[in-house]
Amino acid sequence: MSAVIISTQFTVRYAEVDAMGIVHHRNYITYLEEGRSEYARQRGFPYSQFEAQGFFLLVSEVHIRHIKPAHYEQSISVNTWITEMKSRGMTFEYTVTDTQTGEILATAQTKHICITKAGQIAKMPQTWRDWHQPDDKNTP
Amino acid sequence: MSAVIISTQFTVRYAEVDAMGIVHHRNYITYLEEGRSEYARQRGFPYSQFEAQGFFLLVSEVHIRHIKPAHYEQSISVNTWITEMKSRGMTFEYTVTDTQTGEILATAQTKHICITKAGQIAKMPQTWRDWHQPDDKNTP
Amino acid sequence: MSAVIISTQFTVRYAEVDAMGIVHHRNYITYLEEGRSEYARQRGFPYSQFEAQGFFLLVSEVHIRHIKPAHYEQSISVNTWITEMKSRGMTFEYTVTDTQTGEILATAQTKHICITKAGQIAKMPQTWRDWHQPDDKNTP
Amino acid sequence: MSAVIISTQFTVRYAEVDAMGIVHHRNYITYLEEGRSEYARQRGFPYSQFEAQGFFLLVSEVHIRHIKPAHYEQSISVNTWITEMKSRGMTFEYTVTDTQTGEILATAQTKHICITKAGQIAKMPQTWRDWHQPDDKNTP
Repeated sequence: MSAVIISTQFTVRYAEVDAMGIVHHRNYITYLEEGRSEYARQRGFPYSQFEAQGFFLLVSEVHIRHIKPAHYEQSISVNTWITEMKSRGMTFEYTVTDTQTGEILATAQTKHICITKAGQIAKMPQTWRDWHQPDDKNTP
Repeated sequence: MSAVIISTQFTVRYAEVDAMGIVHHRNYITYLEEGRSEYARQRGFPYSQFEAQGFFLLVSEVHIRHIKPAHYEQSISVNTWITEMKSRGMTFEYTVTDTQTGEILATAQTKHICITKAGQIAKMPQTWRDWHQPDDKNTP
Repeated sequence: MSAVIISTQFTVRYAEVDAMGIVHHRNYITYLEEGRSEYARQRGFPYSQFEAQGFFLLVSEVHIRHIKPAHYEQSISVNTWITEMKSRGMTFEYTVTDTQTGEILATAQTKHICITKAGQIAKMPQTWRDWHQPDDKNTP
Repeated sequence: MSAVIISTQFTVRYAEVDAMGIVHHRNYITYLEEGRSEYARQRGFPYSQFEAQGFFLLVSEVHIRHIKPAHYEQSISVNTWITEMKSRGMTFEYTVTDTQTGEILATAQTKHICITKAGQIAKMPQTWRDWHQPDDKNTP
């Protein structure tokens, strides 16, 4: 069984480019986050509903490898999948690619913990936990 | 011989806080970058001069562990040191702490490659390379 | 003769929302800028080409009225048109609307000056100057 | 009686600079906001306490004139004062200057409305309303 990979596209914004003329690396954090947002929307349980139910998904770890820079007006794709699901947390992995050529610009992994508004660690809603089976083969 | 640790302080800005009421994790990327800026300034060779000499320090890898959230108006410290120096690249490590209590909010590592304006990998200026000796003990 | 109005859509990103749970007002600056980017692309002379020819369009003035807040995952539209064209500068006007309902969230005006890489004020490329005729009626 | 002007300093961050090598204009929104934050802190009623009491200060209007660009590592000052105080809203004005030379980089005005968490327009806390007297002469 293979993992579900959800892809979403962005056109690089002028405000995302730095003095080197390339996308400043802080913006990949936002791209990955929107990769997760799109993942949740396409699987039918948007993150806005997750929060409306009183949960938050804290980021506990981010690991990004930057392979090739991106530029203003370039179309990039964020491809997002789940590699680990626990009752109270999960791991996403990503590739960021050039939409036209498919060339990999960055790879990333983020780890998350589910908390309540009061800040207590909590079990995630069952729908989210069902998105990943332990025997999934997750390499895209 | 121990590594030189340079510390710099920030007051969390309102624009850095997200819907959870905590510093959005993309801002740590900027805090770390300013940790590097301050490191270079305090050691006498600011990064603006580095770029004025025709070099750029590309970010090739970022790894952050978020331990405790930060809030609006909180004073945080970024403590920055070098753990690896090669002729064409280097590694910085960091702790982000609460300035008052010293409590660790995040730990991080970033890897960098030196390039020219034309995009060619290049040797870093000697002054930067002298900042780190191979036998440094780098754990703060 | 009426002005050409170019419309572009965005889904509000999580990183764009602040502690009040609404889009932080700094992001409208970016939305307007991408409104201009889309305007130039759809009229056949993208801003990336403008810069490739050695020109920059400096922002000299920004005026935004915020009427209604926007939220995470909301689809918003930026509608962009030109209200003034001089040889060395121009004025854009905008509405930011809810894509579904058409309700106005913000109105804005930005003024710009054309400069060269060396920072000298310069005439804009003729194609851009042709985008607006003095007798245009520009109220949408 | 003259208005109270509160000044705060920033060192321009690398992430704040754009492809033109100057501070991207969206960052002035954040500088002004931190000007207001510092104003409230120095006058003894920080904005974090304002929110803790259940109020928010919505931005209803922003007007910025950009006079001269700022660069990476430049020290800039934001000088903030109040020009209008109503029971349910207020107006701030600002200059952004080069800290060393005093040269004006930008001037700005922002208007605000006080709301509750539920989104109702509300009277501001009396301490804030006392910060400005109708007969103040507010031109710095």
